[in-house]
Amino acid sequence: MNNRAIKKGKDATIINIGDELLRGDIADTNSFWLAKMLFSHGVTVTKIMVVGDDEDEISEALKSCNSDFVFVSGGLGPTHDDVTREGVAKGVGKSLTRNKEAERILTAKYGLTGILLKMADMPIGSEVIGNPIGTAPGFKVDNVIVMPGVPEELRGMFEPIASSFRDDNAIMVEEWVLTDKPEHEILDVLNEAVRTFTDVTIGSYPYLTGDGQTYKVRIKLVSRDTDTLKRAKKWLEESL
Amino acid sequence: MNNRAIKKGKDATIINIGDELLRGDIADTNSFWLAKMLFSHGVTVTKIMVVGDDEDEISEALKSCNSDFVFVSGGLGPTHDDVTREGVAKGVGKSLTRNKEAERILTAKYGLTGILLKMADMPIGSEVIGNPIGTAPGFKVDNVIVMPGVPEELRGMFEPIASSFRDDNAIMVEEWVLTDKPEHEILDVLNEAVRTFTDVTIGSYPYLTGDGQTYKVRIKLVSRDTDTLKRAKKWLEESL
Repeated sequence: MNNRAIKKGKDATIINIGDELLRGDIADTNSFWLAKMLFSHGVTVTKIMVVGDDEDEISEALKSCNSDFVFVSGGLGPTHDDVTREGVAKGVGKSLTRNKEAERILTAKYGLTGILLKMADMPIGSEVIGNPIGTAPGFKVDNVIVMPGVPEELRGMFEPIASSFRDDNAIMVEEWVLTDKPEHEILDVLNEAVRTFTDVTIGSYPYLTGDGQTYKVRIKLVSRDTDTLKRAKKWLEESL
Repeated sequence: MNNRAIKKGKDATIINIGDELLRGDIADTNSFWLAKMLFSHGVTVTKIMVVGDDEDEISEALKSCNSDFVFVSGGLGPTHDDVTREGVAKGVGKSLTRNKEAERILTAKYGLTGILLKMADMPIGSEVIGNPIGTAPGFKVDNVIVMPGVPEELRGMFEPIASSFRDDNAIMVEEWVLTDKPEHEILDVLNEAVRTFTDVTIGSYPYLTGDGQTYKVRIKLVSRDTDTLKRAKKWLEESL
């Protein structure tokens, strides 16, 4: 259950790329981490997509987005089927060209030559995003921000660019309320809370406890206003 | 890097539903688990999507799928914004009606009444999927299989229905090769392996070791033929 009344500020789509994610070889920790970070920066994620290492699938995923920002990760390495650069270029309708700044970084810092310089190919007009941890640079083209799939590299790239999308006016504060009652017994209270506190997003998440038999419910309260949030929390704790 | 030459058998899209996933409150472990299970049952996942608790967003996600199967999870609870039933009905273009079998189960087994019986509402023509762990039943309508979001419930529902999509002729075996060399140094060997072993899917996954400085590469070999797979592994180990 979730009261979706509050939805302001900018929104974003996350696209994570990699056949290994679609096979369940590797968990998509990047989307989870990015979603949490974007939320804490005032950006609402409306959709997450995972697609394979395929130029057309990447392009189609990108074309399907109508959010303010699109965060893409994965597939920026030097091997022949790291095709994120090609897919993004096709998706934003720009040709792929050798970015001079990226080429300079890869040549000067890492001494790369030949086929490895394909990591400097970016859609025309891209701004390079430096990679403080690894080799492949990221880039920003239009409203699309493209980062590597190696989690440490993605994380290293995030904060330096966050000022370009962070929205302090859209940042929300949160509180949690826990209850031992099953969700169906607290429905009336939840519904009344949703009606009463219209400036608070209320989400209830049932989970199975360690014994595999008992459900408890975590209730999350989110708001842009701390006082309202505290009142809602107090009301819920007294009503449950 | 990934050789995508092998792509036979049925394919699937996974749609996981929940605002809490888009906010990074909860990691999407269901998609990861489902992707792994489907792969081991011979079904290729081509896309994963996470969307919010919103009827239209669910419906749009479903309409965008053109795979053989669609696995949907989350949003089947009794609260007012568990709207997966409504979203799926709209997505497959069928009206939502009280399913008699589901109603019978919920009434007889759990003594549910009133608003709680909305968990028995399903698109017309749905087959009920029993929930051995929790309360909300799943359902199958056309090529769409809908399951709860609580991981234990989803997992409990999977094996009993797996025979309806499992494809023994499409199941692949896998082997891993590890190397201390960075990916850019093994490019030529990988490319030659891809050219030589056309019946083997070869994926290379660089990762940062514990010291935060050194990259190693895990190479995954996948094939439908065990002998070919062993030959490819031996060749790679000798060539690296």
